[in-house]
Amino acid sequence: MPEMNDLFLRACRREPVPRPPVWMMRQAGRYLPEYRAVRAKADFLTMCHTPELATEVTLQPVDLLGVDAAIIFSDILVIPAAMGMDLTVDEGIGPRLGEPVRSLTMMRRLHDVEPEDGLKFHLDALRMTRRALNGRVPLIGFAGAPWTLFAYMVEGKGTKTFNVAKQALFSDPEFSHRLLERLADNVGRFLVAQAAAGAQALQIFDSWAGSLGPREYRTFALPYMARAAKMAAATGVPVICFAPGAGWALGEIAEATGCHVLGTDWHTDARWARGVADATGRGVQGNLDPCALYADPAVIRDLTLTMLSQIDGPGYIANLGHGILPDIPVSHARAFIETVQGWDSREAMARAAAAETRR
Amino acid sequence: MPEMNDLFLRACRREPVPRPPVWMMRQAGRYLPEYRAVRAKADFLTMCHTPELATEVTLQPVDLLGVDAAIIFSDILVIPAAMGMDLTVDEGIGPRLGEPVRSLTMMRRLHDVEPEDGLKFHLDALRMTRRALNGRVPLIGFAGAPWTLFAYMVEGKGTKTFNVAKQALFSDPEFSHRLLERLADNVGRFLVAQAAAGAQALQIFDSWAGSLGPREYRTFALPYMARAAKMAAATGVPVICFAPGAGWALGEIAEATGCHVLGTDWHTDARWARGVADATGRGVQGNLDPCALYADPAVIRDLTLTMLSQIDGPGYIANLGHGILPDIPVSHARAFIETVQGWDSREAMARAAAAETRR
Repeated sequence: MPEMNDLFLRACRREPVPRPPVWMMRQAGRYLPEYRAVRAKADFLTMCHTPELATEVTLQPVDLLGVDAAIIFSDILVIPAAMGMDLTVDEGIGPRLGEPVRSLTMMRRLHDVEPEDGLKFHLDALRMTRRALNGRVPLIGFAGAPWTLFAYMVEGKGTKTFNVAKQALFSDPEFSHRLLERLADNVGRFLVAQAAAGAQALQIFDSWAGSLGPREYRTFALPYMARAAKMAAATGVPVICFAPGAGWALGEIAEATGCHVLGTDWHTDARWARGVADATGRGVQGNLDPCALYADPAVIRDLTLTMLSQIDGPGYIANLGHGILPDIPVSHARAFIETVQGWDSREAMARAAAAETRR
Repeated sequence: MPEMNDLFLRACRREPVPRPPVWMMRQAGRYLPEYRAVRAKADFLTMCHTPELATEVTLQPVDLLGVDAAIIFSDILVIPAAMGMDLTVDEGIGPRLGEPVRSLTMMRRLHDVEPEDGLKFHLDALRMTRRALNGRVPLIGFAGAPWTLFAYMVEGKGTKTFNVAKQALFSDPEFSHRLLERLADNVGRFLVAQAAAGAQALQIFDSWAGSLGPREYRTFALPYMARAAKMAAATGVPVICFAPGAGWALGEIAEATGCHVLGTDWHTDARWARGVADATGRGVQGNLDPCALYADPAVIRDLTLTMLSQIDGPGYIANLGHGILPDIPVSHARAFIETVQGWDSREAMARAAAAETRR
């Protein structure tokens, strides 16, 4: 009988835990030699499209590092690809989506996705990984948020500033709202299908939230993330909303999306994020700067302890504030994980209980 | 006798003005056909190094658009170049600094700059522009902040995330502090020399402030910006500190640097920036999203009026929240400037006076 580690799911629901669960965004990634060995045999998209390979790398950080949750290996751009765009991922250049979508006419050429058809590979990988995990740790599904998908689809590729996508927002709001609405529905359906396929939590990544100012974020990003998140939450599975670069909006994200957990980037003050989590009754996930893992393990330990002392409390899930970088030594990732797993949350829980009593 | 427009300098000192002064970061830039005509004859660095050409393009937005301040045409990387690094700027690629500085040994090969020697071209351009302006509008000098210069010098080029520079902060803090300290002194001396050469205000650009989390910003960026800003402020000339991506730190920037004006990026809520300015008794400059200038002029007008209603008040200087983009139509820049120049600040001033009375 394997050990059942449900710390992550308990934290998602703000239930008491003896110590915070920990996982790392992009934990199935190039910093692991075992990942690079798989990657040497198959390109990135082949790995995404082959459930056996996706399952293999999804399990690696669970087996090798003992993280408390697995996240399915896939990519946020599988949705635009399933809608009919030509997705390519070249090493060192990043993803590209052929023929950017910049008008209603071009948008009409896209088709809506039936997840068990166009995204079956991703759902199969979830089912296969769930069986392989056999309850050891929970399995997270995910999707890109509408604004971030929109940004890639309009630009055709990643950029520093997403000026072309922002130009669409400012100069053609009608087209923008129509495409965002359509994306929200496709993202929502995909998340629902992931829950049905065995995902025990769902994270929505609005990776380019930080490219928008407050007005545009509230007009073009948050409402559509909320629409997808609500469809996902209706399945009963906990939903994590992560909008890096929009830490100022954490409270609005909690309110608008109804999510269970607020993903928090490394830019955001950890104490402040804890305050928003308590004020809104949500969990909070994050937020060590991935670059902190360049430090010596003793320094990583100190930085992690500082973070824990600032952010631990009800519903806390330890993580980095962005994906782990490909050139981080595995021993450094281990120093982060082991520091969290050696932390005792009793003090943070006692503090929360005392605060509750005082109310 | 030419008209003397000192709105900008009065706003820097929070003195009453009938309407906000307005200028645009990177206003001497590629969106102007007249700039592109000069640029067709000389490359970017030749323009920086030739006071006649720098003066010519510095004056263009004053003559063509009627902005209320001129900012000298130059580049933040002239300091690392003057310290001995090989600076190249290739169209479409951005600046590069040959042989990145990544150790104390490499740092020792750099030399400190005597501004009237290594940066004479920049000071000559200030003197020449000041004469040419003949008091029409004030002239702003500028320099890059130590952290931003450090980031370029360690990376050797611009990047999305400045991971190599951040790796230095986390893994070699001693080297980092030594180089930042040295840069702060060189930046400070350069700003002092610019005031002596005729700059009537000085802006410090910490363009990559946003690549640091709160702890690293407070440890490696803010103290060194403050060191340079204090040297500059001792000349008596108003100092503007601009740290895009670190809007959360506006209050700390006011306190640590003693600056007169808080530069504010488009990411930052305009009402919140106004609140910090009033709480700290500083001016505030910004912050329309440069992408807003992609909108139709009527929409630009609305967005500008919204910004003005949120941020105008004592010490306000209208600007974009980042540099103007090269593909903005001149008529759109004009819509922004004319909207500000048609705005009456009496209501904002009355509001401030009433708030003052209530205290």
